Amino acid sequence: MSNSPFQFEQVGIIHSCYRQKFGIPRQPGIVTAAESELEFLPPYNQENLIRGLEGFSHIWVHFIFHQTMDEGWRPTIRPPRLDGKKRMGVFATRSTHRPNPIGLSVVKLKGIESGNGKLILKLAEADLLDGTPVIDVKPYLPYADALPEAKGGFAPLPSVMAEVEFSEQAMDKCLAYESKTGRTLITLIRQVLGQDPRPAYLRESTHRRHGSALWDVNVVWESRGDHFLVMDLEPYSGTDRY
Amino acid sequence: MSNSPFQFEQVGIIHSCYRQKFGIPRQPGIVTAAESELEFLPPYNQENLIRGLEGFSHIWVHFIFHQTMDEGWRPTIRPPRLDGKKRMGVFATRSTHRPNPIGLSVVKLKGIESGNGKLILKLAEADLLDGTPVIDVKPYLPYADALPEAKGGFAPLPSVMAEVEFSEQAMDKCLAYESKTGRTLITLIRQVLGQDPRPAYLRESTHRRHGSALWDVNVVWESRGDHFLVMDLEPYSGTDRY
Repeated sequence: MSNSPFQFEQVGIIHSCYRQKFGIPRQPGIVTAAESELEFLPPYNQENLIRGLEGFSHIWVHFIFHQTMDEGWRPTIRPPRLDGKKRMGVFATRSTHRPNPIGLSVVKLKGIESGNGKLILKLAEADLLDGTPVIDVKPYLPYADALPEAKGGFAPLPSVMAEVEFSEQAMDKCLAYESKTGRTLITLIRQVLGQDPRPAYLRESTHRRHGSALWDVNVVWESRGDHFLVMDLEPYSGTDRY
Repeated sequence: MSNSPFQFEQVGIIHSCYRQKFGIPRQPGIVTAAESELEFLPPYNQENLIRGLEGFSHIWVHFIFHQTMDEGWRPTIRPPRLDGKKRMGVFATRSTHRPNPIGLSVVKLKGIESGNGKLILKLAEADLLDGTPVIDVKPYLPYADALPEAKGGFAPLPSVMAEVEFSEQAMDKCLAYESKTGRTLITLIRQVLGQDPRPAYLRESTHRRHGSALWDVNVVWESRGDHFLVMDLEPYSGTDRY
């Protein structure tokens, strides 16, 4: 057995509303308005490769932390759930900066689309960046994978969502965007901002302007103490990420 | 984003009682006597990389299906749980013959040993072959990973264990082995054979002799209709697997 590296191929790519790491929820199941797709790439875009998958409500996605992989790995991490105050070993976290930058997420499988050489899984509640390379898909097997009695980690965050208000201009643009694209944007913004996407060191400041890229819009917002105010929407190209 | 392969390094290796794929339980949690170790390889054998992991009862192990990876992948698979009669797409199974031969198992973390440059996780109820290369370790987070309401797959197998009897010679050798090595062997054999490790096409035959390699012994046994009989123990070198 040598130490030579194993080589893996990309089998698919994620298309999602999350265009930046900033804003991705820190735990699954909160941002229910987040929709995404897993598109299989040739030669893995053949329907027989997923025969039977429609019988599962959830799947595991093995993916690559592509946006941070060039930064390498770190022996210890300050998990955001500990307010960035305590260091944990990288193998005791789900951090992106791992020796092998492999991510693991369980996501809801909403449907399957195929035709014209495309094979697409419609996903919900995924926390995956747009453009994420996928290296494996597996069914979620509750009898093996669901261990509600397992101990460790952190309790779920309180599901209290902060209020999110919209300027008149921002709301007009949201409504126009929803009617043009058919996408859910207002609920998505409420859920993404409502769980406070700011890193710990920025949570004290108010009236500081932030931008969150969702789909192809940059949502411009400020914290107003106990609530958030969406000021405006701007176009977002996001081409810098690839 | 190119299709070029991603390269991963081995961060650890599994030492376990399972020396052959034949005999590995088809679902976790049955063979409670199965003990194994995950040894981190340099430069990943530093204690700070797992700081905090001791607070978790279970971990995810990402590993390589090293014994079958040279055989390549198959678009469809006949899962043993369906008695080998129905074909499923490879992405709808946990089969070893995947486009990227990555395995995923949740295992119980029993303890951590370190010293003399070694860093070892003591595991229980793992279904991993001895010598398995490990590429990542992550904490199991019940709030994110435990979805007992998820649907799909197969119900747990009935936990009825077949009776396992021992010849006098086999029992004498088992007792001598346990007292020499300090390892649990008799219970391990009862649990491994009790769940009938034979593939579907061999289940009809009785009095056919089988061998199951556990630790460094080859357990020689036969089916006797409603029970199994352990005939003898032989030395097993297992060097052919690497």
